[in-house]
Amino acid sequence: MKKLNTSPISGMQEFLPATQATFTNLKNQIERVFHLHGFQRIETPIIDRTEILLAKAGGDTEKQIYKVVKTAETSAEADQALRFDNTVPLARYIVEHESSLSFPFRVTQTGRNFRGERPQKGRFREFYQCDVDVIGRGQLPLAYDAEVIATLYAALSAIQLPSAVARLSNRKILTGLIDSLQLTQFSAAIFNIIDHIEKVPAATTRESLAALGLTEPQIDLILQLTTISGPAATVSTQLAALSIDNPTFAAGCSELTAVLTLLEHKGLGAHAVADLRIVRGLDYYTGNVFEFILPESRAIGSICGGGRYANLASHYTDQSFPGVGGSIGLSRLFYAITENHLIPDSTPTPPIDFALLPVSDQDFPAAFQLADQLRSANFSVDPILTDKKLGDKFAHAAKNAAYAIVVGANEAASGQYSVKNLATGQQLPLTDFLSNIQ
Amino acid sequence: MKKLNTSPISGMQEFLPATQATFTNLKNQIERVFHLHGFQRIETPIIDRTEILLAKAGGDTEKQIYKVVKTAETSAEADQALRFDNTVPLARYIVEHESSLSFPFRVTQTGRNFRGERPQKGRFREFYQCDVDVIGRGQLPLAYDAEVIATLYAALSAIQLPSAVARLSNRKILTGLIDSLQLTQFSAAIFNIIDHIEKVPAATTRESLAALGLTEPQIDLILQLTTISGPAATVSTQLAALSIDNPTFAAGCSELTAVLTLLEHKGLGAHAVADLRIVRGLDYYTGNVFEFILPESRAIGSICGGGRYANLASHYTDQSFPGVGGSIGLSRLFYAITENHLIPDSTPTPPIDFALLPVSDQDFPAAFQLADQLRSANFSVDPILTDKKLGDKFAHAAKNAAYAIVVGANEAASGQYSVKNLATGQQLPLTDFLSNIQ
Repeated sequence: MKKLNTSPISGMQEFLPATQATFTNLKNQIERVFHLHGFQRIETPIIDRTEILLAKAGGDTEKQIYKVVKTAETSAEADQALRFDNTVPLARYIVEHESSLSFPFRVTQTGRNFRGERPQKGRFREFYQCDVDVIGRGQLPLAYDAEVIATLYAALSAIQLPSAVARLSNRKILTGLIDSLQLTQFSAAIFNIIDHIEKVPAATTRESLAALGLTEPQIDLILQLTTISGPAATVSTQLAALSIDNPTFAAGCSELTAVLTLLEHKGLGAHAVADLRIVRGLDYYTGNVFEFILPESRAIGSICGGGRYANLASHYTDQSFPGVGGSIGLSRLFYAITENHLIPDSTPTPPIDFALLPVSDQDFPAAFQLADQLRSANFSVDPILTDKKLGDKFAHAAKNAAYAIVVGANEAASGQYSVKNLATGQQLPLTDFLSNIQ
Repeated sequence: MKKLNTSPISGMQEFLPATQATFTNLKNQIERVFHLHGFQRIETPIIDRTEILLAKAGGDTEKQIYKVVKTAETSAEADQALRFDNTVPLARYIVEHESSLSFPFRVTQTGRNFRGERPQKGRFREFYQCDVDVIGRGQLPLAYDAEVIATLYAALSAIQLPSAVARLSNRKILTGLIDSLQLTQFSAAIFNIIDHIEKVPAATTRESLAALGLTEPQIDLILQLTTISGPAATVSTQLAALSIDNPTFAAGCSELTAVLTLLEHKGLGAHAVADLRIVRGLDYYTGNVFEFILPESRAIGSICGGGRYANLASHYTDQSFPGVGGSIGLSRLFYAITENHLIPDSTPTPPIDFALLPVSDQDFPAAFQLADQLRSANFSVDPILTDKKLGDKFAHAAKNAAYAIVVGANEAASGQYSVKNLATGQQLPLTDFLSNIQ
């Protein structure tokens, strides 16, 4: 037999059952919070038309997209590829189904996406993203920016990251400043430099801006902008102090402070602050943008981000669908959480509640009956049906379950079962156990 | 702008939110039952090495597999493709992680798989399969065959298909009969003919067997076998009456009746019967095999199937991992359920519980507070934050939510909210509503 490599492909996460249970639990918690916040779940196909997926893309996306080879039976069809995020298929979905949807549409997708990039620590080629978006038709009130941020905060909080802080900015502010300085031709370059401001020394940022041909006063003004941070009131004053007379700048300031104020009304003042360094790279955002960080673990960077886009589906339709959304990169976040012990390392919960240990084949019927009884009380139950010795069955139970119950002739006849806690060794009559936990 | 085709690719399911909610609910119910039965969830990557995926395959699988094109950054790696079922990646997983697992290993996977076949009614290129398997190392008691069937029945029952009946056979029985007739060289052909016995007229089956060169008495004996069906006791007698003296045949009979008897002990006698026509095609099964049907909707065929395999991972390792498993083809089943109205068509539940209708921007803080309160009581809540008229907000609410609450200055001041049932128009004070449902 040819020896095949059975490890998962590099860049793909694959967990043992206990870790998988933790991961799935986080995903379920996030989905639950999204649902409670009124977001409706959809699923889009993983395979889509390449022309749809790449309608807007370019750069890395185009280099990293996984195309699929047509099979004998799909050969007549358009080129196909794997989706690389949830947003592009969402745009297609909105255009395709818009007559059946009601706007503003609160929508969530939590699925796997694919990018064939070089694997790096904490980055994956197949990864889960948990998205929320609100899509309007024609227009979408600014209040939804606050809704999305509040929902993401609630989700992070539910997965035991309540210290998360959203840093907000508005791309119109920097755009307006650039306009007012008549530097519009350098707009993309300046955005890119500011996007990296926290990753390079201050001198490097200055040099990069100077290399574009900006004057010292222009550079000073831009860098002064990026130092602005804090709650709505403070930031308003600081932005006004820049004395920029530009309508785009003014609109950005007003949108930013409006959303910060709404978040204060939601009681999230301590978890949402302005930070004018945030630009969210070369993404398609056009208004408010945000990134969540964990103040006590700044080194891991952004754990969730998003923003407002003027038109979600501009590549597929002439209709206007403004939106605001955000995404928790769950695979990456889970890696960071695990590596940095960000969630308290309690004893991991065994995947199964009860292992049942019938002493012999004769005890199977009693074990089946007890299993059904415990399952109707919502316990997960693994009856061990091997012909091994009881000691071996206990060893197997200890690897998977929290509790064990021996099912022998006496127990079956009397209905008196004893529950053994496999972590502590403590024994308790089943009836006491069940009444204790109610 | 070039007009792009925004429909999903042919053969891919994509639902509107209300249908998605129904689908997700079925999937969650199935996963819940699998968990309660002690099966531990794993997820394997969707992309795997082609040599792993095709180690055993051939025929249609090889023609239908979606290979992925390497990107600039994955070009040095082995050929890769999309998994076409959950079982092949499970085999790889078991070999890769066997030292960390404890056997018998009850394992479940519920994920999307991919086959680039010609789309047909009710068949999909991207489809969910919900699998349970128990994997042993070296050996695996027969009782686990009953566990898998009972678990699948419980899952079908949970999704409102309690009439489902498992039809069981054991491949050793037909194998033994063929051996005893010294027809081993025609084994694959005979299995294939019996596999189609319910889809063609009786005369065609006879002709096909005769075309292999079988004698009339041989054909009669094989066809007599395929008429055998019923509970353990009856089937034992009927099988004995064939007077076949062959150890494989005898082993098959004994394995089949043992599992039927265990299922009777589990109270599933009415939902598990022998049916010697069942062979499960050209699959890798070596012992008991089964298929669930809905007696009142026989035309839709098998809704779930599985069986016992002597060695799950024989293509990747010399170690022996016998297993037994089964799979609910959820995408296909959901299509059949929907097309045939197999689940009672009650009024579809709206995806969201409450829509909140603030009268003006001034009422947002009160709406946010009420939303938080309802969410902590586990209701999903969509505060509508548009500046539309109240009538328009009600129209939007009626499309998504079960209940609406108007949030105006009076309501906010008094804390007296009124809940409107959007289906019936009935109004009720919120306090009464909340105490009614407790």
